Amino acid sequence: MKGTILSGMRPTGKLHLGNLEGALRQWVTLQDEYKCFWMIADWHALTTSYGNAQEVKQNVLQVALDFLSAGLDPEKSAIFRQSDVKEHAELHLLLSMITPTPLLIRNPTVKEQARDMGLIGGDEEMVKINYGLLGYPVLQAADILIYKANFVPVGKDQLSHLEITREIARKFNFLYKAIFPEPQPIIGEYPLILGTDGRKMSKSYDNCIFISDSPEVIREKVGNMFTDPRRIYRSDPGHPDECPVFLYHLIYNESEISEIKEACQNAKIGCVECKRLCAEALVQRLAPIREKREKLEQSPSLIFDILGEGARKAKEVASATMEEVREAIGAW
Amino acid sequence: MKGTILSGMRPTGKLHLGNLEGALRQWVTLQDEYKCFWMIADWHALTTSYGNAQEVKQNVLQVALDFLSAGLDPEKSAIFRQSDVKEHAELHLLLSMITPTPLLIRNPTVKEQARDMGLIGGDEEMVKINYGLLGYPVLQAADILIYKANFVPVGKDQLSHLEITREIARKFNFLYKAIFPEPQPIIGEYPLILGTDGRKMSKSYDNCIFISDSPEVIREKVGNMFTDPRRIYRSDPGHPDECPVFLYHLIYNESEISEIKEACQNAKIGCVECKRLCAEALVQRLAPIREKREKLEQSPSLIFDILGEGARKAKEVASATMEEVREAIGAW
Repeated sequence: MKGTILSGMRPTGKLHLGNLEGALRQWVTLQDEYKCFWMIADWHALTTSYGNAQEVKQNVLQVALDFLSAGLDPEKSAIFRQSDVKEHAELHLLLSMITPTPLLIRNPTVKEQARDMGLIGGDEEMVKINYGLLGYPVLQAADILIYKANFVPVGKDQLSHLEITREIARKFNFLYKAIFPEPQPIIGEYPLILGTDGRKMSKSYDNCIFISDSPEVIREKVGNMFTDPRRIYRSDPGHPDECPVFLYHLIYNESEISEIKEACQNAKIGCVECKRLCAEALVQRLAPIREKREKLEQSPSLIFDILGEGARKAKEVASATMEEVREAIGAW
Repeated sequence: MKGTILSGMRPTGKLHLGNLEGALRQWVTLQDEYKCFWMIADWHALTTSYGNAQEVKQNVLQVALDFLSAGLDPEKSAIFRQSDVKEHAELHLLLSMITPTPLLIRNPTVKEQARDMGLIGGDEEMVKINYGLLGYPVLQAADILIYKANFVPVGKDQLSHLEITREIARKFNFLYKAIFPEPQPIIGEYPLILGTDGRKMSKSYDNCIFISDSPEVIREKVGNMFTDPRRIYRSDPGHPDECPVFLYHLIYNESEISEIKEACQNAKIGCVECKRLCAEALVQRLAPIREKREKLEQSPSLIFDILGEGARKAKEVASATMEEVREAIGAW
């Protein structure tokens, strides 16, 4: 084993192709080489969804289904729900004591999120958001450090969070005892996946293709996708590099790429036909995941058993770390 | 039973007469009429003492000894250490999600504390303190609400904290389900106890008489007390109402008050003799507490057993509340 990894996703709904290609595919390969903890971050979901917590509950199951269908293996890794491991809350509280508020206020990711949610206008309004939202990087630090993770697979937009975790780890190690590794990022080379409207794929844009979408839905969504805006008539030559559909071909239809590219550029294939090929490739590529998911959906109790077992494994490590933490702080 | 009460003290060292007369005496009477939870708030101590946590550990035992010697009865109440009931950390996290940061930033008590510690200059610097210090009223809300306390005995300077707890309870009840009572303050009529130098009794002024001081130490401290500043010579008439020693007579030497007052005003008694009488009265009044403490000090393991049993009782209530809280939020 090359070290320990923690990563997680908030249960904000079914996962989409962006989650699959941008994270899950890499996680599946990592689990063979690292000791992995994959967390469904339901407490984090409350930082922004405290008003619709019922959804969080539904979504935990959906995310677990997506995790397992995509190939995360409960035999190899701990797949668990954050709130099942209460030690995260205790470490969060202890770390909050040594975390300067300015470190949180100037966090660019939280700022962007608060701005997107319409909670703040200018930067100076960061102090107006809820205490738990302001402090979620502290919870994230607890999530990572409690497993003494050496590596965290993150997107580039999450690097500032990881820097806060590293800063908190350094401060703890300096004040008390050097028990936490400073986790390093693993930044994957991800293919770009755009939403069906050509913007970033995001639930808030309603432009997602979900891992669990049926073939019919996939065909419909791909059929309605935006294409090269400069190709107005069937007889116009297309520009594949400016077409979101072609990005999908690049990922899901390797064998036909050069053919399709050439046909598009020379107006030998229309967008309707091109989308049909794309949809079929996508349907086929997602088939194993979808089939696995359909099977798993039959037995939700099995999923909760898996999460229970994952929590047990996670708790074993987390509670051992907490023993060390309390000992190091010296107050117990 | 008239309801449930929670109160607590931070383990910052041995308790002094101000703690005894301003809180503990009242707590002892309350425990017969209310279901009481008396907490040694060791997590709170970390908000300001995270750098000397070792002291916190020593102090937990000292505070427990003072609690028990003063008459708190583990048969009647739950006497426990906060960090033994991890549920407080979980509720703290959940309540942090619904607590607006401005509510914390404008808290006058935290502001004063931060100013006293030299952490901030002006009010606008509140955002510079540590995240856990800024948020300790949220932890306090969790402490109180997790026992569904109806009443909290507080000093007047703590009313703003209780108001935050009430506000958080209202918000929770409105958002999710009405499970928390809005706790009411019980403001006692406390006798004024000044320090040996005539200022407020406070460890930071080094002017305390401790509950556990030996008769010799009490005699020495009282012997060095400041007295009426206008009485310079033995033959000068004294002004009892301006003398800190006379305040002690008022509390600890009722039977001789009028006699001493008259003698002081007419220069029939000198300050040395007056202090001697005061010290003896105080020694005598504290004797039962001191004797009990000396006995308890012999068996620290008994104290930890009592704290363990208190934690068990507290945990029973706290974990039942957390079941309700998770159910109410609906995410679990």
